[in-house]
Amino acid sequence: MPSRMRAEIGEQPDALRRTLDSLLPQAGALEALGRETRQVLFIARGSSDNAAVYGQYLCSVRAGRLASLASPSLATVYRADLDLHGVLAVAVSQSGATEEIVTTLRWARRCGARTVAVTNVAGSPLTEAADVALITQAGRELAVPATKTYTTQLAALAVLALSVGRGASAGPAGPGLPGAGLEELRRVPEAVEAMLDVAPAAEALAGRLTDADTLVVSGRGFAYSTALELSLKLKETCYVTAVGLSYADLVHGPIAILDPGTPALLVAAADGPMLPEMTGLARRIAATGADVYGIGGGQELAAVCRSTLPGPGLPEHLAPLALVVPGQLLVEALARAKGLDPDAPRGLDKVTQTDP
Amino acid sequence: MPSRMRAEIGEQPDALRRTLDSLLPQAGALEALGRETRQVLFIARGSSDNAAVYGQYLCSVRAGRLASLASPSLATVYRADLDLHGVLAVAVSQSGATEEIVTTLRWARRCGARTVAVTNVAGSPLTEAADVALITQAGRELAVPATKTYTTQLAALAVLALSVGRGASAGPAGPGLPGAGLEELRRVPEAVEAMLDVAPAAEALAGRLTDADTLVVSGRGFAYSTALELSLKLKETCYVTAVGLSYADLVHGPIAILDPGTPALLVAAADGPMLPEMTGLARRIAATGADVYGIGGGQELAAVCRSTLPGPGLPEHLAPLALVVPGQLLVEALARAKGLDPDAPRGLDKVTQTDP
Repeated sequence: MPSRMRAEIGEQPDALRRTLDSLLPQAGALEALGRETRQVLFIARGSSDNAAVYGQYLCSVRAGRLASLASPSLATVYRADLDLHGVLAVAVSQSGATEEIVTTLRWARRCGARTVAVTNVAGSPLTEAADVALITQAGRELAVPATKTYTTQLAALAVLALSVGRGASAGPAGPGLPGAGLEELRRVPEAVEAMLDVAPAAEALAGRLTDADTLVVSGRGFAYSTALELSLKLKETCYVTAVGLSYADLVHGPIAILDPGTPALLVAAADGPMLPEMTGLARRIAATGADVYGIGGGQELAAVCRSTLPGPGLPEHLAPLALVVPGQLLVEALARAKGLDPDAPRGLDKVTQTDP
Repeated sequence: MPSRMRAEIGEQPDALRRTLDSLLPQAGALEALGRETRQVLFIARGSSDNAAVYGQYLCSVRAGRLASLASPSLATVYRADLDLHGVLAVAVSQSGATEEIVTTLRWARRCGARTVAVTNVAGSPLTEAADVALITQAGRELAVPATKTYTTQLAALAVLALSVGRGASAGPAGPGLPGAGLEELRRVPEAVEAMLDVAPAAEALAGRLTDADTLVVSGRGFAYSTALELSLKLKETCYVTAVGLSYADLVHGPIAILDPGTPALLVAAADGPMLPEMTGLARRIAATGADVYGIGGGQELAAVCRSTLPGPGLPEHLAPLALVVPGQLLVEALARAKGLDPDAPRGLDKVTQTDP
């Protein structure tokens, strides 16, 4: 029987279309919010935290705003007393019900931040703590591993960052910011649809990785978020000890763990300044005797990897919305190849509370 | 022959005394800088990045300033155009010569930030890009794995954060911030000295972990930085696939990888709000059949772990300066137990450049 996870991976093009239809009309309101925003603070856990890493790069590069990830325990445990005026706090949670995230967004608001909720559940507690709610339209997700709720979060964060950037290009942050590009988002659902054809290749790659207990997953820049997300999925769904690292963090030490028994999986967009770096990294890892596999990166990366899954032709800053899909297919196939149920990993519930 | 790493672990009490003697007189200048500081942005890689995670918690909890870690590629590759007025950019690099870090600090200055360098090398390129240089007095470090340069970085960041906090308690960020406590730092060298007695117990624990290819290392709050640093050391020095995760990130998914073949190492201060949580986590992991080991956490954590190395009696916010030491001893002993040279891990140089 096909898994729910596999079915939900296939629902992503429609989920993204619905989400963009619903959120693009909010661009004006987000642009206005952006004019009061000096800085963006993301509040998230798990897959949503990986989506936030994408948001962080996009806000910095395309909206000219310093962006960072909050440590929720600063709010929930240490109750830090910070001045957050001029900060846009963006909480990301598919359920909108993770208490720690709701508490942290409320804390940010009390500290003076303007607040945004990105969630798949309208009317959830998170939306009540937010000035603006961006409701993703993924539909109900039944498999525990997040797929369509993750990619629709990326779409929501792209609408947010590009809208804020649109305000910035006419504002005090200076001219020349490539804040436009909201219309380019319309290319994403089709690009994701094309990725579904990768399923047989993903199945074949899963067959090669069945015996790998450990895997290093790496990306850089915008694609770093994809590496983190796939690393998390491999851990929670396939029980593989996947180490997700940026290119830079990898070469600053952990590259020592790579050996012929520890394969590496590199993810990269088809263009952009990171592609030559990731290709160089693949060459360096291959020299240690480790097997190197790739997702995306076009001909350049494929030429130095043992095998690659094709990625999207989207521009680098939008690639993560589709680049994760071949990886999702790989994770689902690998779980099955290992005799596991991809829909219900051990030890996890759909809504995770940090504190019991 | 005893390793250089082991010798340098033993030099930490003196290195910390010298560093505090040298940096505490700069508290006034840092307090003044703090008055212009709305937010702190750390710039670092590798072990220095783990030190920055400690600085991030300390700046938020004890200085009332939002603090985050920069992604250097935003400066070096994407050349993001951000407004960093009111931001204190703090670059941390033992050599002060890592180009990427120097470039990113210069970028922060051009974007309007005030700048601080934390480095072990006076007159290094990093100091030239900084308004204030905090020179640690670790002396020359010969082993590749950072030990005394790491703990003296923590000391420098503590001086910085507590000084900034001192300004805050009288400033607009509101009263009641526990910004004082600079004098408490004087307790640290002695606490580190006491940790050196843990060496035989660390050697015994290393014996038990010789066959573990994979290890999960976790901590929360201030001790999260210690978990990250030990995870990095285990990877680079012992070639163990160590996964360093916060308590929250662990329960949000990756807890699935824990099984009887994957031991966990938990680090905790002897007091503070995180101790009951880490004790609960230890109980939860033990229930999966995995072996749980601890560093610190007093009687509470010891009662649920298979075995623990004692930690310091320092208050939670200073504990990381000494809590890492039993872990360093463990890493050094484990490398030897595995027949490796702790001083010269494969694939690493003392000064790491991200881009070749």
